[in-house]
Amino acid sequence: MTGVPAPDPRTADVGRLVVRCPDRPGIVAALSGLMADAGANIVDSQQHSSDPAGGTFTLRLEFVLADLAARRAELEARLEALTGEFQLTWRLTLAADRPRVAVFVSKTDHVLQELLYRVGSGDLRADIAVVVSNHPDLEPVARAHGVPFHHVPVTPDTKAEAEARALELVGDVDLVVLARYMQIVSADFCARFPERLINIHHSFLPAFVGANPYQAAADRGVKLIGATAHYVTAELDAGPIIEQEVARIDHRATVEDMRRVGRYVERQVLAQAVTWHVEDRVIVDGAKTIVFA
Amino acid sequence: MTGVPAPDPRTADVGRLVVRCPDRPGIVAALSGLMADAGANIVDSQQHSSDPAGGTFTLRLEFVLADLAARRAELEARLEALTGEFQLTWRLTLAADRPRVAVFVSKTDHVLQELLYRVGSGDLRADIAVVVSNHPDLEPVARAHGVPFHHVPVTPDTKAEAEARALELVGDVDLVVLARYMQIVSADFCARFPERLINIHHSFLPAFVGANPYQAAADRGVKLIGATAHYVTAELDAGPIIEQEVARIDHRATVEDMRRVGRYVERQVLAQAVTWHVEDRVIVDGAKTIVFA
Amino acid sequence: MTGVPAPDPRTADVGRLVVRCPDRPGIVAALSGLMADAGANIVDSQQHSSDPAGGTFTLRLEFVLADLAARRAELEARLEALTGEFQLTWRLTLAADRPRVAVFVSKTDHVLQELLYRVGSGDLRADIAVVVSNHPDLEPVARAHGVPFHHVPVTPDTKAEAEARALELVGDVDLVVLARYMQIVSADFCARFPERLINIHHSFLPAFVGANPYQAAADRGVKLIGATAHYVTAELDAGPIIEQEVARIDHRATVEDMRRVGRYVERQVLAQAVTWHVEDRVIVDGAKTIVFA
Amino acid sequence: MTGVPAPDPRTADVGRLVVRCPDRPGIVAALSGLMADAGANIVDSQQHSSDPAGGTFTLRLEFVLADLAARRAELEARLEALTGEFQLTWRLTLAADRPRVAVFVSKTDHVLQELLYRVGSGDLRADIAVVVSNHPDLEPVARAHGVPFHHVPVTPDTKAEAEARALELVGDVDLVVLARYMQIVSADFCARFPERLINIHHSFLPAFVGANPYQAAADRGVKLIGATAHYVTAELDAGPIIEQEVARIDHRATVEDMRRVGRYVERQVLAQAVTWHVEDRVIVDGAKTIVFA
Repeated sequence: MTGVPAPDPRTADVGRLVVRCPDRPGIVAALSGLMADAGANIVDSQQHSSDPAGGTFTLRLEFVLADLAARRAELEARLEALTGEFQLTWRLTLAADRPRVAVFVSKTDHVLQELLYRVGSGDLRADIAVVVSNHPDLEPVARAHGVPFHHVPVTPDTKAEAEARALELVGDVDLVVLARYMQIVSADFCARFPERLINIHHSFLPAFVGANPYQAAADRGVKLIGATAHYVTAELDAGPIIEQEVARIDHRATVEDMRRVGRYVERQVLAQAVTWHVEDRVIVDGAKTIVFA
Repeated sequence: MTGVPAPDPRTADVGRLVVRCPDRPGIVAALSGLMADAGANIVDSQQHSSDPAGGTFTLRLEFVLADLAARRAELEARLEALTGEFQLTWRLTLAADRPRVAVFVSKTDHVLQELLYRVGSGDLRADIAVVVSNHPDLEPVARAHGVPFHHVPVTPDTKAEAEARALELVGDVDLVVLARYMQIVSADFCARFPERLINIHHSFLPAFVGANPYQAAADRGVKLIGATAHYVTAELDAGPIIEQEVARIDHRATVEDMRRVGRYVERQVLAQAVTWHVEDRVIVDGAKTIVFA
Repeated sequence: MTGVPAPDPRTADVGRLVVRCPDRPGIVAALSGLMADAGANIVDSQQHSSDPAGGTFTLRLEFVLADLAARRAELEARLEALTGEFQLTWRLTLAADRPRVAVFVSKTDHVLQELLYRVGSGDLRADIAVVVSNHPDLEPVARAHGVPFHHVPVTPDTKAEAEARALELVGDVDLVVLARYMQIVSADFCARFPERLINIHHSFLPAFVGANPYQAAADRGVKLIGATAHYVTAELDAGPIIEQEVARIDHRATVEDMRRVGRYVERQVLAQAVTWHVEDRVIVDGAKTIVFA
Repeated sequence: MTGVPAPDPRTADVGRLVVRCPDRPGIVAALSGLMADAGANIVDSQQHSSDPAGGTFTLRLEFVLADLAARRAELEARLEALTGEFQLTWRLTLAADRPRVAVFVSKTDHVLQELLYRVGSGDLRADIAVVVSNHPDLEPVARAHGVPFHHVPVTPDTKAEAEARALELVGDVDLVVLARYMQIVSADFCARFPERLINIHHSFLPAFVGANPYQAAADRGVKLIGATAHYVTAELDAGPIIEQEVARIDHRATVEDMRRVGRYVERQVLAQAVTWHVEDRVIVDGAKTIVFA
């Protein structure tokens, strides 16, 4: 299911440009002029200014350009020429390219199943390159979809070498997803994948940081439970939030019921966040994200 | 608008019985037998057992009994006779009775306006007996609806006597609602209205306890903002939650936008919680609530 | 995944009683008295009166009774004794029993995958006995979960015999689910599974009855798309609705986007409806359903 | 409450440009170049192409330009110069300007109350110039907010002259809102306010077109009820939809309950639609709308 599909005519000439720079008049004109000069037709455009006076300007353009793959270098050269004047940080991608994703799991399969389903259905245009787990349980799930699975046990004593082994197995993927991986990854691990490491936390952050959030939610008697997908930083459960959602429960819900209901929220939230990331819709801006959904 | 409406034929003979006791077999049979013997027809019934083995049993019955007002004493005597055997705590109310409510506000009017609207429309069957505020601003709003308004200024030095004055003005109301009242009430105040003092907190508790939750939400970069209606206890923002709701925001939302969007969530959540309370649908069970919605 | 799990101690002695009869005083007392006499502890109870004067009374009880399987006949005899007096229609089930379900599909797999996932996770306590399709495409999906798959092609000329063949393959299952089966089943087929045949329609009924509802939704420019799970009757898309849900779209959504977004609504709505049915929470009342969720 | 507020420093120099034209490369470049040349800083920009090949291009820009009011004519001249080349249809507005709105009502006040509340709170930047009704009931509501109220009775025989009288009273307002006005307006009336006449229909269109949708919803046994705000055209309930929302109900809901719940959906949906319209966020595109929310 994660094999290469037939070329999609809708995306073959579709490109995406994501830009971030200090806000000032003329940026949109310069970038859209560049695109017009190159013969590209802008089909979608979203921008945000964190503050018209002295803030950060961010822009995502989706455009169609005939023979995009062949003309990519030319476009990049044009962008490079603007970089100095506007202090641009930019990223140009081809919609046809499929990012390679590593997924870390432990014992529960609902999020992994959802990612595999969405890759298979074509809703998530990425390839799951490898699944790594500190438990052997989900090997059959990965194998059934033709995805390599590696069991890397973690104990308090072997944590560092286990991480090293996992990083080796993962290699140079474009994105790492912690899909209910019940281990805290090290600061070094986070630094290895800046703004490319996504976790699903099973609460509506910042409520119920840390372990066993459903028990904490039950103890507090909340009427909604939630899930949060966020980029992972060195501080636990404090990285920039990409997406959150909640589900209603009532007084009849046991902790086990919350876990059950929560699984459907978690899989939805993480799959949405990964999809947005893969489509270059998420831009980190300090402690927050801009999501051009 | 808050005057006495014409008698509602739908509610004239409608009664509500709310019961709490240790769970054991036979309670439902005893109570429904009592109702059948009295000639009452049970039109709605909801129950909950916190744990089939050794938990708390709660029940809410809505019934129709001809000449209910006249036969109330008889029903109460029958219930009293069961109290010892089952260790019942019970409450019998007539749907036609309208609880008297005191509303505390500060400067923002959206929640007060909503309560007044719902009383006027008949959706909230209660009478707003008095509005108390530490600021004079909302006097015209209360007056326009024919509700007495009292300005009781609060300063750090006069807090105790201001509360005493407010309690005097409020008198023996059935319910006190803090409708964005920007003062922390004392433990004594809370004790005066056990399970009859409702507050709206402008966050999805337990996230963002305390002052200025929208600023905190903006700083954290959440994707949903929320509001929580809860019974007030001596511990700040920690009382039993009655209702919560959220609204989606995106990266464009400033703190001011969050306040604006949040107003609509707050008014909905508080009005819902007050309505459920007034209809005897909320039962406090330790740190949580059972809501027979 | 659809095999028999280890006995669940939580459900071994749990029973469910669903009752329907003309409303009159004393029913609840009679039924709860019967349960108390048998030594059963009622752990959940929901009832509904369509009209206190002359309407239909419906009740669902969940109870715990030691050695339930052994004492089922005794309970049923007690119920039988009440049947005449109250004109009861009743159904008694053991929570531990797993209904056998036949699933009909065509080419799209999202709803089938969801049902298989929920059976595997234990969230849907049923066994998928057989998958029948008018196309061969989804055989691998069924096989991967160990479920027999039958390809029964349908053409305008062979429709009657294809249905006969399908009915034969399905046998005496407890429930038939049309999981995006793109064929209209006959009135005879419907009659064979009264109140036991569930379909998912990919619109918010009664909007967009019939074929290609997403195209119709796009043409009308709606801002929400929906899905509806309903019992199938002889009249197309007009059977009693069990569950509906919607998802927000905006002007950017193409018909293809709607289909994609809709898949997630459809799978959620159908899985929820099937789960409620399997847990004896749905009672048909004329053209509508009562759902004791 | 509907008086002129103090000038808002946030909006004094804020302008909005809305553009529609045949799609072709270079439009964004030309428009953003124009803005840059004029010294305007684009703070928000949203665009949509109905089809990259031969579709309609729509754009909404929000910009800051010092001394905007004084320089408006210059900007308009620059836009005029582009009009021919790109076949532009455009509209330039100052965020500080407050559109004048006429509201038509019958007997129910919930939507009118909501509009008045939002104007008063500043969330809806418009002035309600006049309320017209075919019944006298809501005169006190309008008067309490200082808004002129006109009672224009309508009978089958006087319908034409009543409309003429209403149009005279309404004058040259910028927008007409039918806020649960229980009369069908004529095609002439619609033509008088093209894309400036908004109605709230109390169902999820296209389900339950016409009179008494809540009764129809109850008869069909739907599990969600909805409301739809749309521009009014000569064909009943068929104009371009601006916004829709739903609320969950269950089998206990009577028609009266649906009306009650529906009121909160209706007021939210209509107020949202009117706010988007007033902020130049809605563009009609044939039978549909583009909403740059």
